[in-house]
Amino acid sequence: DRPFVLIAGPCQMESRDHALEVAAALKEICAQAGVGLIYKTSFDKANRTSLKGRRGLGLSAALSVFAEIRDSLGLPVLTDVHEREQCAPVAEVVDVLQIPAFLCRQTDLLLAAAATGRVVNVKKGQFLAPWDMDHVVGKLDDSGNRNVIVTERGASFGYNALVVDMRGLALMAERTGCPVIIDATHAVQQPGGLGAATGGERRFAPLIARAAVAVGVAGVFAECHPDPDRAPSDGPNMLPLTAVPGVLATLKELDRVAKSAPISSHLSPEAIGDRST
Amino acid sequence: DRPFVLIAGPCQMESRDHALEVAAALKEICAQAGVGLIYKTSFDKANRTSLKGRRGLGLSAALSVFAEIRDSLGLPVLTDVHEREQCAPVAEVVDVLQIPAFLCRQTDLLLAAAATGRVVNVKKGQFLAPWDMDHVVGKLDDSGNRNVIVTERGASFGYNALVVDMRGLALMAERTGCPVIIDATHAVQQPGGLGAATGGERRFAPLIARAAVAVGVAGVFAECHPDPDRAPSDGPNMLPLTAVPGVLATLKELDRVAKSAPISSHLSPEAIGDRST
Amino acid sequence: DRPFVLIAGPCQMESRDHALEVAAALKEICAQAGVGLIYKTSFDKANRTSLKGRRGLGLSAALSVFAEIRDSLGLPVLTDVHEREQCAPVAEVVDVLQIPAFLCRQTDLLLAAAATGRVVNVKKGQFLAPWDMDHVVGKLDDSGNRNVIVTERGASFGYNALVVDMRGLALMAERTGCPVIIDATHAVQQPGGLGAATGGERRFAPLIARAAVAVGVAGVFAECHPDPDRAPSDGPNMLPLTAVPGVLATLKELDRVAKSAPISSHLSPEAIGDRST
Amino acid sequence: DRPFVLIAGPCQMESRDHALEVAAALKEICAQAGVGLIYKTSFDKANRTSLKGRRGLGLSAALSVFAEIRDSLGLPVLTDVHEREQCAPVAEVVDVLQIPAFLCRQTDLLLAAAATGRVVNVKKGQFLAPWDMDHVVGKLDDSGNRNVIVTERGASFGYNALVVDMRGLALMAERTGCPVIIDATHAVQQPGGLGAATGGERRFAPLIARAAVAVGVAGVFAECHPDPDRAPSDGPNMLPLTAVPGVLATLKELDRVAKSAPISSHLSPEAIGDRST
Repeated sequence: DRPFVLIAGPCQMESRDHALEVAAALKEICAQAGVGLIYKTSFDKANRTSLKGRRGLGLSAALSVFAEIRDSLGLPVLTDVHEREQCAPVAEVVDVLQIPAFLCRQTDLLLAAAATGRVVNVKKGQFLAPWDMDHVVGKLDDSGNRNVIVTERGASFGYNALVVDMRGLALMAERTGCPVIIDATHAVQQPGGLGAATGGERRFAPLIARAAVAVGVAGVFAECHPDPDRAPSDGPNMLPLTAVPGVLATLKELDRVAKSAPISSHLSPEAIGDRST
Repeated sequence: DRPFVLIAGPCQMESRDHALEVAAALKEICAQAGVGLIYKTSFDKANRTSLKGRRGLGLSAALSVFAEIRDSLGLPVLTDVHEREQCAPVAEVVDVLQIPAFLCRQTDLLLAAAATGRVVNVKKGQFLAPWDMDHVVGKLDDSGNRNVIVTERGASFGYNALVVDMRGLALMAERTGCPVIIDATHAVQQPGGLGAATGGERRFAPLIARAAVAVGVAGVFAECHPDPDRAPSDGPNMLPLTAVPGVLATLKELDRVAKSAPISSHLSPEAIGDRST
Repeated sequence: DRPFVLIAGPCQMESRDHALEVAAALKEICAQAGVGLIYKTSFDKANRTSLKGRRGLGLSAALSVFAEIRDSLGLPVLTDVHEREQCAPVAEVVDVLQIPAFLCRQTDLLLAAAATGRVVNVKKGQFLAPWDMDHVVGKLDDSGNRNVIVTERGASFGYNALVVDMRGLALMAERTGCPVIIDATHAVQQPGGLGAATGGERRFAPLIARAAVAVGVAGVFAECHPDPDRAPSDGPNMLPLTAVPGVLATLKELDRVAKSAPISSHLSPEAIGDRST
Repeated sequence: DRPFVLIAGPCQMESRDHALEVAAALKEICAQAGVGLIYKTSFDKANRTSLKGRRGLGLSAALSVFAEIRDSLGLPVLTDVHEREQCAPVAEVVDVLQIPAFLCRQTDLLLAAAATGRVVNVKKGQFLAPWDMDHVVGKLDDSGNRNVIVTERGASFGYNALVVDMRGLALMAERTGCPVIIDATHAVQQPGGLGAATGGERRFAPLIARAAVAVGVAGVFAECHPDPDRAPSDGPNMLPLTAVPGVLATLKELDRVAKSAPISSHLSPEAIGDRST
């Protein structure tokens, strides 16, 4: 198995300059750490808790910035789409189209993303079991696009709380054959936790990432920001850029151990004495 | 408070004749029972578990059928919308636009529905707490449309299961001021329970409706079908038409008792000795 | 089916005089309402959150008070037991031995309670599904005591929260054949909600009771107190005595409707068009 | 921080010879791996799902076997207690008294275990949040015994399922100051999953252990058996002895990485840019 990849960037594209600055900083951090990077940012936050929440630069302004990040920094780029019509124009300038968790069951959006031929990263809905992703991936497969990534970002656990079931990471990899990513920063959100905004506990994002890397994921998704406490969205759960090098160093070591003894070697019927499977 | 209303009809519009037949049958049943009826059916099932699942007649074919049901039977009609562009044409021929549970946080869809001036019925997401609906209703209110209905259809409870928290019905009524509906048939779904389709336990739908009516809801939503076991979607949880009269009779009696002693009378600080509120 | 019974009293036996005073008040309230009463109180709160919490009068002091309540007021009495050795002496002076929810899987305690020949009321653990009670009741049945009552008091729902699944009431009645009780006041507890004590929302206790009675339970369990805000335990969820008459009046009417149309009539394969069962 | 310890052994003491054989085998495996071992086995399974389930050798027969394991193999021994009276005699022959998860709120059992002066290992109830263990540990601390270990074994997640929240491991360590253990084999139980017995998925036990060790636990608890499929209890989730060396080797490497970069270094307000704490 290959070394893990980092998918990182600020929650929303705040401006051209901000986007380029953060992308350049992350490029440098990942080069130092010897970790592959996909730059992530959103042009529109389409499901903010309140109308008053800032939503980002918007599609038309963002397209040229995505192109510039790819061209000037040589970074692959990922962004999320919310409506069918967005898929084709976005696919011109990004490498990975992401389906938001709330929308992972919307057939037409999945098919429009698949039709672009780009890699499609589907976030698992907070309301789905790991095995429910079989059908989501199946819709994409049936449409002919097999470049699919699956991302875990936590499951509903009572009200205003999420929990990550680490078993789901191995189950989804085993069942779908897709690379599985842990979204460490959304997994520590507290939905509804701040009243009119989503809360979060950023200090647990490295913990979730460490546990998932020890299980053996294909990559870690973590939103980062130069100054999370002043970010227009997801501040409570984003990592400050200054924390990323230390976190990455530990993850890289854990990844090496995990990949040298794949979880499937422990899970195999032979290793585990399981006669029933 | 006014007597409860029934929102009922088959999960999907299978054909013009099927739609009119079921609407006429339900009109007759509700007239006999003395219960108000809003006819519900979907022109498109946009989030089927698998690509192979039938999705319904589609928007363009459905518009004239909605109009015919309203004209020939005099029934108010409700249907669900999945994309912004659908709101305006649908609003021409139906009385209530419904926002699906998975989409209840999609700001643009909410605003497009609100902009039609029609009543908007928002299903509470399986991933939301009752108080989280404050913000969903707030988006609609802020846009200037105050004809909003809120519907409970169960919350995620572990994997592949839903549970209805009866407190949520009173909480949402109290907090939003909107009429609150219990969706008794989707609440007994087993998401992912049939592998490539959603399962359900229709026999518990009357139970959920009885409990909710005793709490004091504004209405009951229940999908019905002449032959649920042969329906193209949601068969396991739809009620057969033959069961509706018996269920309605009991609900009507429970509603009379519940409305004569509103739950708020038990809940009031005076009644309950609560000094802290 | 017979009219519902009320199981009520203060969470803990605070003193002989307090116990007799509350028992007499409840006897009068229930006589006025025409509702049967079983008096409930605990001689020891064996699982308080903190050592500092008051635990009640204790076993030896309580025995004569239980006897006095039975003799002087003619009321049947229920109390909970925590250790095997308590069952025999307690059974001398009470009518129903109750097994606490946390202890409902402790085989030796169940068997010791069953061996007394008294009615045994088992609270369903917060960690159990309705169908898991089959085995709990099975242990009692196998030991030869078939006078078993099953009580629902909510299931764990994320952290520090409970939810009542109304389907469980019908499922447990159907599967075990035992009378099923709704514990309306413990169901609205917030475990751990007050830091060093358990919180609760007493204003929802009548709501839970109404919903459960509309489903068709055998009885309602509700802890009551003359002054809950000064009670040594469970104050946040106990009902003030002054609220009981109003709540009972509505429950009685709902019960009449529910029992005249048993839920099983809606649930039957014939009524519900279910060919599979 | 010190290297992790393994707490392992068969679910129940089946016979003297079986107990000694497994203890000797585990001693050899752990010596090879360079991992400390505490031998765990139960003299009585006091909460079997059904009366028909085998419960183990019983207290009086077990005492001399515990003593023999300590004397002849030089291993520290852990076992669980269910009633106050068991604590003193058990403490004569074992090093760690364990409080079962269902009983972790029973004050008198906690105090009796604490009074022996032995180390007390409390399993966190499936119905508790990580922070609820503050009060459980507080009861033991207040009684004067500060040799307390806290073990995570999963939290209720809907019906018949458990989930491990990896954040809880760090939270409990931080809040209580106690060593925190992950019980990897009970965490993969499926309570009620086999009808009259508890099911489980042993193949996920190494996965849970890997994730927890990467977070940085003090030890791993894993029930093991020479032939789990023929064990009288917990077979579905116990590891075969043959799987232990491979699992341990990976855990040891992960532990080295985790302890060289304690999670608290990522969690610190400085590292994480958190101004609010």
